[in-house]
Parts: sequence; C-alpha cells; structure tokens
Amino acid sequence: MKKVAVIIGSDSDLPTVQGVFDKLAFFGIPYEAHIISAHRSPAAAENFSKNAAANGFGVIIAAAGKAAHLAGVLAAYTTLPVIGLPIKSSTMDGLDSLLSVVQMPKGVPVATVAINGSDNAGILAAQILAVSDDALAERLLDFKRSMAEKVDEADKKLQETLKN
Amino acid sequence: MKKVAVIIGSDSDLPTVQGVFDKLAFFGIPYEAHIISAHRSPAAAENFSKNAAANGFGVIIAAAGKAAHLAGVLAAYTTLPVIGLPIKSSTMDGLDSLLSVVQMPKGVPVATVAINGSDNAGILAAQILAVSDDALAERLLDFKRSMAEKVDEADKKLQETLKN
Amino acid sequence: MKKVAVIIGSDSDLPTVQGVFDKLAFFGIPYEAHIISAHRSPAAAENFSKNAAANGFGVIIAAAGKAAHLAGVLAAYTTLPVIGLPIKSSTMDGLDSLLSVVQMPKGVPVATVAINGSDNAGILAAQILAVSDDALAERLLDFKRSMAEKVDEADKKLQETLKN
Amino acid sequence: MKKVAVIIGSDSDLPTVQGVFDKLAFFGIPYEAHIISAHRSPAAAENFSKNAAANGFGVIIAAAGKAAHLAGVLAAYTTLPVIGLPIKSSTMDGLDSLLSVVQMPKGVPVATVAINGSDNAGILAAQILAVSDDALAERLLDFKRSMAEKVDEADKKLQETLKN
Amino acid sequence: MKKVAVIIGSDSDLPTVQGVFDKLAFFGIPYEAHIISAHRSPAAAENFSKNAAANGFGVIIAAAGKAAHLAGVLAAYTTLPVIGLPIKSSTMDGLDSLLSVVQMPKGVPVATVAINGSDNAGILAAQILAVSDDALAERLLDFKRSMAEKVDEADKKLQETLKN
Amino acid sequence: MKKVAVIIGSDSDLPTVQGVFDKLAFFGIPYEAHIISAHRSPAAAENFSKNAAANGFGVIIAAAGKAAHLAGVLAAYTTLPVIGLPIKSSTMDGLDSLLSVVQMPKGVPVATVAINGSDNAGILAAQILAVSDDALAERLLDFKRSMAEKVDEADKKLQETLKN
Amino acid sequence: MKKVAVIIGSDSDLPTVQGVFDKLAFFGIPYEAHIISAHRSPAAAENFSKNAAANGFGVIIAAAGKAAHLAGVLAAYTTLPVIGLPIKSSTMDGLDSLLSVVQMPKGVPVATVAINGSDNAGILAAQILAVSDDALAERLLDFKRSMAEKVDEADKKLQETLKN
Amino acid sequence: MKKVAVIIGSDSDLPTVQGVFDKLAFFGIPYEAHIISAHRSPAAAENFSKNAAANGFGVIIAAAGKAAHLAGVLAAYTTLPVIGLPIKSSTMDGLDSLLSVVQMPKGVPVATVAINGSDNAGILAAQILAVSDDALAERLLDFKRSMAEKVDEADKKLQETLKN
Repeated sequence: MKKVAVIIGSDSDLPTVQGVFDKLAFFGIPYEAHIISAHRSPAAAENFSKNAAANGFGVIIAAAGKAAHLAGVLAAYTTLPVIGLPIKSSTMDGLDSLLSVVQMPKGVPVATVAINGSDNAGILAAQILAVSDDALAERLLDFKRSMAEKVDEADKKLQETLKN
Repeated sequence: MKKVAVIIGSDSDLPTVQGVFDKLAFFGIPYEAHIISAHRSPAAAENFSKNAAANGFGVIIAAAGKAAHLAGVLAAYTTLPVIGLPIKSSTMDGLDSLLSVVQMPKGVPVATVAINGSDNAGILAAQILAVSDDALAERLLDFKRSMAEKVDEADKKLQETLKN
Repeated sequence: MKKVAVIIGSDSDLPTVQGVFDKLAFFGIPYEAHIISAHRSPAAAENFSKNAAANGFGVIIAAAGKAAHLAGVLAAYTTLPVIGLPIKSSTMDGLDSLLSVVQMPKGVPVATVAINGSDNAGILAAQILAVSDDALAERLLDFKRSMAEKVDEADKKLQETLKN
Repeated sequence: MKKVAVIIGSDSDLPTVQGVFDKLAFFGIPYEAHIISAHRSPAAAENFSKNAAANGFGVIIAAAGKAAHLAGVLAAYTTLPVIGLPIKSSTMDGLDSLLSVVQMPKGVPVATVAINGSDNAGILAAQILAVSDDALAERLLDFKRSMAEKVDEADKKLQETLKN
Repeated sequence: MKKVAVIIGSDSDLPTVQGVFDKLAFFGIPYEAHIISAHRSPAAAENFSKNAAANGFGVIIAAAGKAAHLAGVLAAYTTLPVIGLPIKSSTMDGLDSLLSVVQMPKGVPVATVAINGSDNAGILAAQILAVSDDALAERLLDFKRSMAEKVDEADKKLQETLKN
Repeated sequence: MKKVAVIIGSDSDLPTVQGVFDKLAFFGIPYEAHIISAHRSPAAAENFSKNAAANGFGVIIAAAGKAAHLAGVLAAYTTLPVIGLPIKSSTMDGLDSLLSVVQMPKGVPVATVAINGSDNAGILAAQILAVSDDALAERLLDFKRSMAEKVDEADKKLQETLKN
Repeated sequence: MKKVAVIIGSDSDLPTVQGVFDKLAFFGIPYEAHIISAHRSPAAAENFSKNAAANGFGVIIAAAGKAAHLAGVLAAYTTLPVIGLPIKSSTMDGLDSLLSVVQMPKGVPVATVAINGSDNAGILAAQILAVSDDALAERLLDFKRSMAEKVDEADKKLQETLKN
Repeated sequence: MKKVAVIIGSDSDLPTVQGVFDKLAFFGIPYEAHIISAHRSPAAAENFSKNAAANGFGVIIAAAGKAAHLAGVLAAYTTLPVIGLPIKSSTMDGLDSLLSVVQMPKGVPVATVAINGSDNAGILAAQILAVSDDALAERLLDFKRSMAEKVDEADKKLQETLKN
C-alpha cells in the first residue's frame, strides 16, 4: 500500500493532529509524519512534496493554522491528492485557517476537512487509498457499521436513562 | 478506470458545475452526472450512494448550495471519497454552503473544494483516481506543467505591455 | 395529544438539549428522545422520520452541531414540522450549525430556533401542538404571564438594590 | 381551518414575500396579509398580535429585514407559533436580518426559515396546520412527491443532454 | 436636569451594565433603572417608553443581548434619543446583539455603542444632556482632560519600566 | 437652536449622505456640511472638532467608509455627541465601516446608526436637540405619527390588491 | 534607488493592480512587474524571491485573491519587506484573501494593505524606500499636502453647492 | 540606525506587545515605546507623529484594539511607514481591530500584521530598516536560517517520538 504523509506546520499543533495518527493506525495504513513549515522551512516543504510520489506516498495530509498556506504550497509541487486540515488558532475561531486552506484558486485543489477535524483527515486518506484497495474498503465499511452501532448503543443508554 | 459520479442538487447549478465536466473530459475520466436533491429526492440520494461502489464508481462529486447537505448525505451511505463543491447562492456569499459542506462531524469526511470551484473538484477527482493509475498521474503532471507555462506566457505578455 | 420526537445527533449534546426535555415536561407534552446521527446512522434517521407521523408524533425537534444536517435530513422524509436546534461546537461559535440548519433550500423548511436555544425548541413544539389544543394554549398563556411576572420581580429586586 | 396571518414590515418587501402567498394558496389555506412595522407602527403590531388567536389565526408569518424585530415583537404578544422570514436588505447580505430573527432569548421562540425563504415560510405554516388536519397533511405529502418527481425529470433531461 | 432611564433586558446583564451606573453617578446625572424585557414583558416596555418623556426622562439607555430588540422596541414608542448597548451572550461573540441593535430601519434610529460598552453608554447619555447644560459640558471636558492625563501617567510609568 | 455639523469623509459619499440633509431640513434644523478626511486632512478634522462647541454646534454627524476613523477622531477632540454613519464601500459589505465606527474603546463613545442609515443619522440628531427643545420634540412626534399613517396606507393598498 | 517588484498572481488581476503602477510611476520609483502564481508556477515564485535582494529589489508587492498564498510564499524566501495586496474575488467579498494574506504565523510577516487597495500598496512601498531616501520622503510629503488640498477643494465645492 | 517607535493604545495591551520589544532587541534596533491613545490623548498622538521623522524615527509600530484607529491616526500625520498591530479584545475575536487597522482608504496606508502578531510587527520593522542596512539584512537572514533549523529540530524530535 502507498504511504500517507502527514505534514504539520508547527509542533504546537501535534496534539490537535493526534486523530490523524490514530485513524491511520486503526486502518493499518503506513504513514510518515514531519514538521515542515511553508513559511519557516519552505525548502523542506518543496523538497518533500516534489519527491513524495517517487518516495511511495499516495496521499499528503497538511495541518496548519492562521494563514494556513502549507496545504496549498505542498499541492503546488505534487499531483498527489493533498488533504488540508485547518487548525484553529488563538484568534478568528478557525475561520482564517479554513478560508486559507479551502479557497484554492483554479488548477490546484486542496481536499479540505473540518477545522480541527483530524479524525476525518485520516479517514479521508483511507477512503482515497481504498479506491484501489478492496481490503481497506472493507475495513472502512466495518468502521462505518461500528459507528452506526455506537450511535445505536448511545440511544439505548438514553432510553434507559429516560425510563428512570 | 473507475467512474466519477457528479451529483448536482438542482439543475439551476448546472452552469456553475460545468468546470467539473470539462476537467473530467480533459483527463479522459468516465463519469455520470445526476440531478439528485438531498432534501427533495432523498430516496434517490440514498439509493445512488449505497450502490455507487458496486456500480463502478470510484469517486463522488456533490455540488449544492445554501444548507448544502448533499455531500454529507451521500457520504453517510458510502465509503467512497466524496468531494464537496459548495455553490454560492443569492445570500450569504457562499459562506452557508461552505460551512454546511466542510464542517462534517467526526467519522464522515467530505473533501471540500473552494466555493464554486468546479474545476478543482474535477481535478481532485482525477488526483484521487491517479493514486493507482500511472497514466492518469502523468496526464496530471502534464497539466501542471502547462499551467506553469500559461502563467509564464501571461508574464511575457505583461513584459511586452510594460515596455510600451 | 400527539407526541414530540426529540432527535439528538450525539450523546455529547445531551446536556445542551436538557431545556427541551424540561419544557416539554413542564407543558405536559408526551415525548420520546433518540440519539440518531444523520451521518453515522442515516438508516435510523430515515426510518424514524418516515414513520414518525404514523407512530403518533406531531412535531420533531432535531438538535445537532457543526455541519448540522440532522434537521434537514429528517425533514426530507416527513411532512411533520421539524424544529432545528443548532448546537454550538468547539469552533465557529455556532455559526456553522446555524447556517446548516436554517438555510434550507426551497421546498423543505426547518423551523430554526437560536443556537443552543433548547428551551425555545420545547416551547415552539408546545405552540405548534397548541394550535389545535386549547388546554395547552391556556398553559402557554399562563407561562407567558409568569415570565412577565418574573421580569417584574427582578425589577422590584433591582429597585431595592438601587435604594440602598 | 385556522387562518394564517402574513405580516410584512414594509411594502418594499412584497415581491420577496410573494412565495408565501403562492404556497398558502397552493395548499388552500386561508390567509390575511398586512403591512405592519414593529418600529413605525408598533401599536398596530401589538394590536394585531394580541387578538390574532381570538380572530381565528393559527399561525403568524412575519417578514422583515435589517434589525428585523417584527417576528419577535409579534411573538411577545401571542402564544401562536410565529414564523420568522428574514429579508435580505442592501447591506450585510441578510446576516443582520437572520440573527435578529433567530437569536431570540429564552421564553419566546421564533420559527425561523432561510433568508428570503418565502416558499418555505408558507410550507412551514401548512405543516403546522396539518398537525391536526389530515387532508392538509395529505396535500403536503403530494407536494413532497411532486418535488421528487420534478427532480427526477430534471435528471432525465440532464441524461439526454449528456448523451448528445 | 432631565433623568436618564436605564432599561435592562435581563437581570443577568446587571454586572455588564454596571459601567452605565458608574458613569451616570460620576457625572451627577439622576437616573432610574428597570429590568424590562421586550419579549417577556412587552407591555411594561411599551408603557415605560410611551410615558418616558412625560415622566421627566431625557435619554433612554437600553441594554440587551442576542436578538436584542429592546432598544428598537423602546424607540418605537418615544422620540427621546435611545442609546442601544449590545450585550455579548454565550454564542456569536456579540455580533447578533450588535446587528440587532444598530441595523434599525429608516425612521427609528438607535444610538448604538460598542458591544458591552457600558461606560460609553453612560458617557454618551451625559454628552446628550450636556448639549443644553453647560455645567455638565464642563464636567465632560474635565473628564476628557483626566483621561488624557491618565494615558500620560501610564506612559510615564512605561518609560520608567523601560529604563530598568 | 444649536447647529448640526455634517462631516463627510469623501465627496464620493455625498449621494449616500443625502438623507441626512433631507431630514435636517425637514425638521428645520440649521446645519453646516464639510468634506473632511480623518486621514487625508487630519488638521482640518482636529480644527473643526475642537471649535465645534464654541462655533454653535450641538451635534456632529460623521459619515465615512472602510476603516472609518472619522467619527472617532472627531469625538477625540470634542465632548459634543458624535453620530457615526458607517458607509458601505466596495468590499466587506459595510462590516468594516460598522465595526470601525461602533467599537470605540472606553471613554470616547460614538452614537452609531445603521450602515448607510443617513435618514436615521438626521433623525437622531433631531432627537438629541429635541431633549431641550419642545417645539422640535413636537415635530418629531408628528413625524412618528405620519410614519405610522404611511404604514397604515400601505396596508390599505395591500388589502385592495389582495381583494382583486 | 532600489527597485520595487510587483508580483501578480493572475493576469485577471491586472486592472485591480493598476493603482500600484500609477503610484510607483508618480513617485518616480523604478519597478518590475511579473505574473507569477504561488500555486501554478511555484518554482518561478521561489526563484524570483530568492534572488530579489541580489537583483536590486528593495520591496516586493504581492497581489493575489482567494486563498492568497503569494505574499506568504514570497516572504518565505526573502528578508525583504513583502507588501500583501488582497484581491477581492467572486465569493466571500475579499475576506478570504485578506485573512490568507494578513494572518501570517510568527516569524514571517507580510505588510498587508486594504482589500483591492492598490494605491496604498504603491504608496507604502514608497514610504519604505523613503526611510533612507530624503528626496523621496519629500515627494511623499508633497503628496500628503496635495491630498489635504484636494479634500479642501472638495469641501469648497460642497459649500457652493449648499449655498444654492 | 534610525529608531523604531512603538506606540501602544493602552497599558493593558503591554503583555501582548512584548513580542515587539523582544524582536527589536534581538535585532539590535534602537526603539522608544509610548502609551498614546488616538481617542483619549489625541494631541499626544498628533504631536508624536508629526515630529517622528525629525526625531530620528524610521518606522512606527501602532498597537491597538477594538475600533483601532491609532495606526491610521498616526499615519495621517507622517509619511514614515506605520505598522499596524491589531489587538484582540474581549469581543469580536479581533475582527474589529483587524478591519479598523487594515481597511485604510486610498492615500494613507497602514502596513498591517496578524491579530496579536507582535513578533511579526517587530520583524517587519527590522525588514524595513534593513532595506538600507546590509548588516541588519544579514541578521535577518541568520534569523530566517535559524527558524528553518528550529523547524528541522522539531521534526527530528518528532521522528524519535514516532519510532517509540
């Protein structure tokens, strides 16, 4: 299976990004993670992205906040799908990150997930790889079923609470 | 190659969605398009999405405006990657569509592109299919090169304008 | 009297939704509550909504956050009035929930109340049922009078504070 | 059947409100319409609302723009369900109207529909009256079916376009 | 001197409104304060406002949050200047209150100050009364001078900090 | 009677400000108008404001757009009430102007009216002057009555339309 | 004098950027202009920025819209001051461009001017170069004086209009 | 070397502004800091700004919150580049400050950095002075290199964490 690259703009975002690691591990997807900043280490960003396909990566996840250019900068140097994960910072409630990630101009898309939506970034990477991997697709179906079951269990618990 | 499904919430959005068709055709990707509304024809939405993988689709693109639930509703019934294309309507300048598409809760991602970003929705679908299709990946690289060339040509034209 | 259905997108929203239960109980309105997710358990959502009228429900209240599709998804499958209760989540200060609930396209309305306005969701359900229930309408008038009295008492308390 | 009152804040909003009249007529619901301003003719607003229930009204629809207080002011004087229809004015893209209508404080709900969503205001009024009117409920089901059929027809038309 | 009326939508807003009382007391302006809700005690609101001029009031300050209709409702029943003080509530960061207060339609103005700007509401009331009261105008000038001095003192303190 | 000063940040705003002139003329209030820019002619702004009280002005209206500092800058140099009229410019739909005018820090209020609300700026000036001018107060009451009558007439016209 | 570089993300932005050229020409500042896209021609962006200082540039102006990464990307590769000029595109009223340009993370500033504020981008470049160029500083003072005069002339014209 | 002036609107903003001092000290740039309010001590603002160039300043940094007019007011009286640092206050999440600082009208630019972006304000001042100071430019290059190294170190640390 091709690997997923998880590129994180700042080590302060690591706790928020944990959901990506959890989901990739859950689905048994090999990944590498790197701290690379579009603005403070742009050469590393370019270098990583240019060689990502050749280095066996199939999907890139880019997590950054504020004027979050990381996903766009990586997408400029590769034709791999780039998943953008906007991180909420201390001002603007995540709107700046979201708009900086999602509003990409014509020609260079970024597949954007919810603000701080790290679980979904990992799941989306799995869905993309599963397009050509039936076993992984099966694991995604299992996960979908288990989510429905968990909601069902929460509902059952609520019914018991309401009885009392 | 797996097909791309283009699901459009209302026929009034067809002109805005044209870029999706153009780009899929440009990259030689087989696709089907349907008008299906999450709210007015929900059974059709469920039906299409449940069977999309079995019917040979690899990616779904969902275009809708206002409280744009279409992408999320399709994503609820499939594990295929769903690309959300928020359409700007007559109020709120597209913000309602964008937030309704991108802010998906944990477990069910939607790969969101820019408001009215139909070209990018098509390119992202191509990028996803290209993860396991080297010929398509090559076409995407060619496209990337030609974009750079076009920018370069626009620059050369500007230089001549500035000389005069 | 017809019952009210309270559908909640996630058990984490239960504390915020408590005001719905309190107000329905206060007005003596029979209700059922369920945890059902538009995205994680869509079959349950469809199933509940399709049969809600036949099962004796007169009004549905749907509480959800972020890209809050729950109210719209339920409204797609029923002609009962659906009250949308947008829940504020950890980003975007409730604006994403509000717009996802209220900006419904032509044909499928959702009766939206304020962000986190659980009391008002319950009261609105009572008002809807009271259109054909004079006793309930009388209880609503009593409640309205008691609210005015409570404001009056708060004012009297302020007058005493200001004297000192 | 109880009547619907359509209260409009300014005659300049009449074209935007037309959808309310169309839908109420479509469903065969008796209605009265009045131009009443919460700020310029507050006595008329109070007077209408106080007597609305006694005068045979079951639902009030209030349409206003900018700092749209009309729905809230009417709701203050009645326990009938009040549907708020926020009208987009020349600045703020409807956000001011929406927030002024929907963010009602505890105790006095307004059932808010989309900005300029006049069709939905009419349909919601029908849904509320249909809670105790099976014939009207049946007409709403017919309308729901016809909406699905119209989407289906639009889809068929698209298929023929795509063939050529 | 004419009195100032301070009308507060909910006793929970009293701490935020304290600055109004402080400033009115500081400038020696007689005032009365009342808890009156535009939605929960509308008759009290109408009653107060209709008689405010006859009762010796020259200015009304109205403090409310969320869909803050209080200032507009009072302004509907009086030609006295009404100062609107938008109170920030638990969602929307005060934007809902601000827009509900300031975006008044043609014919009925509300003199709006900053969100939670209680000091400024009190000062503005003083400025309005001072238009015809030279002694009060002089106190306002003194206050202005003392503000400049306080800034100057803060600057001097900073200079000493920077030396060390 | 004291005069009203109408200070306008740019001659391009004159058409939007026309409502101020109309209303001041309607109420028979003497006024002067000047084009003064807080940023391009700051000395004129300072000069005008410092001497406004001595020159017989009772109220200042300041109209400006974008980062609309004019009202705040004038308010810094006078204790007269300053009415801020935010003008919508070609971007940001007036939100930048509104926030720049209304969000004044502690100590220096600006009495803000709606975006482009020129009529209301004029009426508010009249209300402020009327605090100590019973004849003007009477004219304001007449105006209030005539507004209610006009709404009533519009309603009557609607009734005739609805009959046909 | 060092040159100014004007980098424009797309030739469709040329009309909006014209004010930059006009002002640089007005102040007699040598400049070069290039169409370079951060996303479509990233190598050109890197190349230009890395060599800008060595090539005799003193300031870079970067104009781009939507997820406007251009200024940030250029700033990543140079220590020259980079002026960001956010361009309003067809959705989001320029807010996406503004936040993408101004909200730069710690370490890499962009000197942002108003949305579509091309004149100001040119003037700011002149101000920066004038820090070490007294003749240019003198021209800026002349320009400032002439702006004040133009406002004064507009005011005089208004006085004549008001007389009639 | 010319000095940098750091003008702060309120001593309560001093902790947020600390990053300016740190960065200026880091780069060895002489600076003075003053508490001056555009609204409460406007004469001091005018006075400082008018004489700033003559007093040896090359750049002004202005930090303020809410309706943050300070940068614009200083820029009105000088042709030195003015860096605007918007400070987030207790409401509106910094959006009011940002728009009040950045949306300057034609003719008077403010070089705006991110909300609370004090480090970047200091760095931008250094970049501006470095246009004519090669030694300072070299220090900026060193700083840029060290930022890239720190990111690289954070990445190495992450690699070790991921191994375990």
